[in-house]
Amino acid sequence: MTKAWTAFTDWIGTLSDLSGTLSLMGWDRETLMPPGGADGRARHMGTLSTLHHRELVRPDMAGVLDEVANDDGLDAAQRRQVELAMRHRSKAERLPESLVRDLSEATSRSVNVWIETRNTGDYPAYAQALAEVVRLKRAAAALLSDGGEPYDALLDDFEPGAHAASLEPIFDELVAAIPPLVDDAASRAPAPLPGRTWPAEAQLALGHDLAEMIGYDLGRGFIGRSAHPVTMTIGRGDVRFTTRIDTGNPLINIGTVMHEAGHALYEQGFPADAWRSPLQDAPSMGAHESQSRFWENHIGRRPQFWARIEPMLRARFPEAMADLDVGRFADAAVDVRPSLIRTEADEVTYNLHIALRFTLELGLVRGDLEVEALPSEWRRLTTELLGLQPEHDGQGVMQDIHWAEGLFGYFPTYTLGNLYAAQLAEAADRDLGGLDAAIAAGRFADILSFMRTRVHVHANLRPTDELMRDATGAPLGTRPLIDHLTRVVAGE
Amino acid sequence: MTKAWTAFTDWIGTLSDLSGTLSLMGWDRETLMPPGGADGRARHMGTLSTLHHRELVRPDMAGVLDEVANDDGLDAAQRRQVELAMRHRSKAERLPESLVRDLSEATSRSVNVWIETRNTGDYPAYAQALAEVVRLKRAAAALLSDGGEPYDALLDDFEPGAHAASLEPIFDELVAAIPPLVDDAASRAPAPLPGRTWPAEAQLALGHDLAEMIGYDLGRGFIGRSAHPVTMTIGRGDVRFTTRIDTGNPLINIGTVMHEAGHALYEQGFPADAWRSPLQDAPSMGAHESQSRFWENHIGRRPQFWARIEPMLRARFPEAMADLDVGRFADAAVDVRPSLIRTEADEVTYNLHIALRFTLELGLVRGDLEVEALPSEWRRLTTELLGLQPEHDGQGVMQDIHWAEGLFGYFPTYTLGNLYAAQLAEAADRDLGGLDAAIAAGRFADILSFMRTRVHVHANLRPTDELMRDATGAPLGTRPLIDHLTRVVAGE
Repeated sequence: MTKAWTAFTDWIGTLSDLSGTLSLMGWDRETLMPPGGADGRARHMGTLSTLHHRELVRPDMAGVLDEVANDDGLDAAQRRQVELAMRHRSKAERLPESLVRDLSEATSRSVNVWIETRNTGDYPAYAQALAEVVRLKRAAAALLSDGGEPYDALLDDFEPGAHAASLEPIFDELVAAIPPLVDDAASRAPAPLPGRTWPAEAQLALGHDLAEMIGYDLGRGFIGRSAHPVTMTIGRGDVRFTTRIDTGNPLINIGTVMHEAGHALYEQGFPADAWRSPLQDAPSMGAHESQSRFWENHIGRRPQFWARIEPMLRARFPEAMADLDVGRFADAAVDVRPSLIRTEADEVTYNLHIALRFTLELGLVRGDLEVEALPSEWRRLTTELLGLQPEHDGQGVMQDIHWAEGLFGYFPTYTLGNLYAAQLAEAADRDLGGLDAAIAAGRFADILSFMRTRVHVHANLRPTDELMRDATGAPLGTRPLIDHLTRVVAGE
Repeated sequence: MTKAWTAFTDWIGTLSDLSGTLSLMGWDRETLMPPGGADGRARHMGTLSTLHHRELVRPDMAGVLDEVANDDGLDAAQRRQVELAMRHRSKAERLPESLVRDLSEATSRSVNVWIETRNTGDYPAYAQALAEVVRLKRAAAALLSDGGEPYDALLDDFEPGAHAASLEPIFDELVAAIPPLVDDAASRAPAPLPGRTWPAEAQLALGHDLAEMIGYDLGRGFIGRSAHPVTMTIGRGDVRFTTRIDTGNPLINIGTVMHEAGHALYEQGFPADAWRSPLQDAPSMGAHESQSRFWENHIGRRPQFWARIEPMLRARFPEAMADLDVGRFADAAVDVRPSLIRTEADEVTYNLHIALRFTLELGLVRGDLEVEALPSEWRRLTTELLGLQPEHDGQGVMQDIHWAEGLFGYFPTYTLGNLYAAQLAEAADRDLGGLDAAIAAGRFADILSFMRTRVHVHANLRPTDELMRDATGAPLGTRPLIDHLTRVVAGE
């Protein structure tokens, strides 16, 4: 190892340690922090973000980076580390420290206001905090985009290599293909579970059962509860997620656990030598979401899945399950019906919720839409795409935490995740002799092994398009997802 | 405000933010982190500690500090901030980075060896690691003491302003006064609670009842569980503590909650403008411990306290309390009897455990005692002070983590806390027309208000001796504690 390489790895290690620390602060904020701690936490996270930024742009690293970038002795993984680190640094150099701190504090504040006001849908109380976030994100986008598409500059934080111009036709195809499927589904009678109580403690215990069943290692993780579920790598050997529990509806917890455990399995599957480097990551959020959507939609909604977990359901809910056929879960899990809340949407209408958000945030970032006009535009598009009207903004524009957190350009990655998940499910189906049979036989280790070798072990060694093309045998396209959704609606 | 003052407050603010972040990392490690996360967390905390040290000794702050130190326009609180910050910086500058790193590695090793060997009491396996810690602490003490008393240099980390020479006569007085009290107490029959089960969830709920009763604000706090109870300020409006729960003995949780809530009330009572400065602290660990010991021993052991919380006990433990008189709790809480383990000792013998440790660590730091001779000296003093003999070193010299962690000079602060608590209790008794009556009437708000105005609002604005002399009307002395312990033994 050269002296420059040692200095480089120290530097990316420190950056990784600071990111992990910020994750811990975010985790604690979502799960445990008392209300009185909000302002102080915002300040602490602002300071840590500033130190991270300062470390990332440290002038005395310029020589070291020059040296490692020109070192012909590096292997491919090392070259990728240098490339990723320099890309992060170059973005950070273009954002002044004051903007980074302002953004961190503004988003902490708006998240807190959002938490206080979302249930009542008090948009005017929230709008001021959100407007400040939008103002700062526009400023950041302008600095990063060099006069090009400002949205792409923000999208790049989550989906490197993607562009608004390539996403627009994808959403056009989905917005054309999905509504007829929703209409078909509407002809079937609703299939909700009958009303009864599902105790929270038993639901959390079931969440642990399910996560362990599909391979999540609790010795290197923790399952908590929060209003908005998250998965976070806090540090080496510490990948946590939260679930959301509604004692009137057990499907929310089950779907959330399958989803978040999918994310967590991905991060638990990163190779050990990626630790403390930019390789310790997915190449994009779309790639990450492919894992959560695969387990949530392509495993966790099949009749074979429900048959497999029936003993767990009966053990955890002896009373609620006493007179209930597990087929009721299987039917309810694929009940397709337009609804107002994205996180409770079925997998068919889900992508319409994303199309709506993509359209609106594109307008917000470009400056074509202002924060005051957001609720009315939200209502207009909800009617157009889903045929519904929210009763108040808590069921509409205030339902998601993302914009409060400054996450513009994030929503499309959910649909990209759905697209990649459908491609991966087709590949897994071929590879494993049918996913239905594998689930029925409880061969979750085989399914995880497929995903480990095709996706997880590559961590951030390769860009998303390469990774997914090799994993699925095909470039990104809408056909596998539309085929899958068509089968769901047909009840196949 | 001058430009230098702004730079100074930014700097102390960043240091405070880093300390708060380290507290969060420690809190999470003790309460929630999965076992697999230990190595990664150690690395993250190491990185944050390094960044804190680097910030503390930042060369470009020298000019700013010169300027604020010579600014005649500062008020007393500002001068105190400058003085405290410069003292911390000057200590950090006097220890070479290599010694800090060696100490960090040596204490990590000795803590690990201690964890592996303490239960078996395998002292020879532990002695080598401990000897290295002692060697390095002696080196640090030599660098910091300028040829003076080396123990004082280490004591200063925990009890600024205290000296071995002033502690020795205090411990002499206690070691003379306490053993006769222990002999008196031995004539009374043991008074343990009868064996039954006290469910953990109900104990935690009772902990919340008690903490709220004495004024702890849960909207700015959180009560968790850990093997070793702690109180931590994570950030502004976020002061947390943990309790330890033994389902066979409810007194451990009750005593722990009263103790830790005492610490937490202190930190919740710091004035808002101390935030993000060195004023946001107790002036010493002894001052801090005065608060925990006051609530634990001077409030939480009185018969009036047990009578007051009887309805809570009956509500939380309907089964265990069914045939139990609350007087049994009052008797068990003041049962005095020599024992081997400090953390399980009654409030009378407790100070003999500290006297033993003070004598031994003074010898170790001065070089009058070597690590090999420590177990035999421990046994000799245990017999002399407590009339007992440990069966193995796990019940003796290996019972505490402190020395393995390099914490020499910490133990005396426990007894200083007991001394100050007794003086404060006498003052409160005078001020409030009798503590017995105040507790019997549930006037906990009055008791807290006494402590808020006498101690809490002063935070770290004044040194401990000044603070306590004004709060209690007398200089530090042993008479109030000895009087109190005499009343405890007499059953008054």
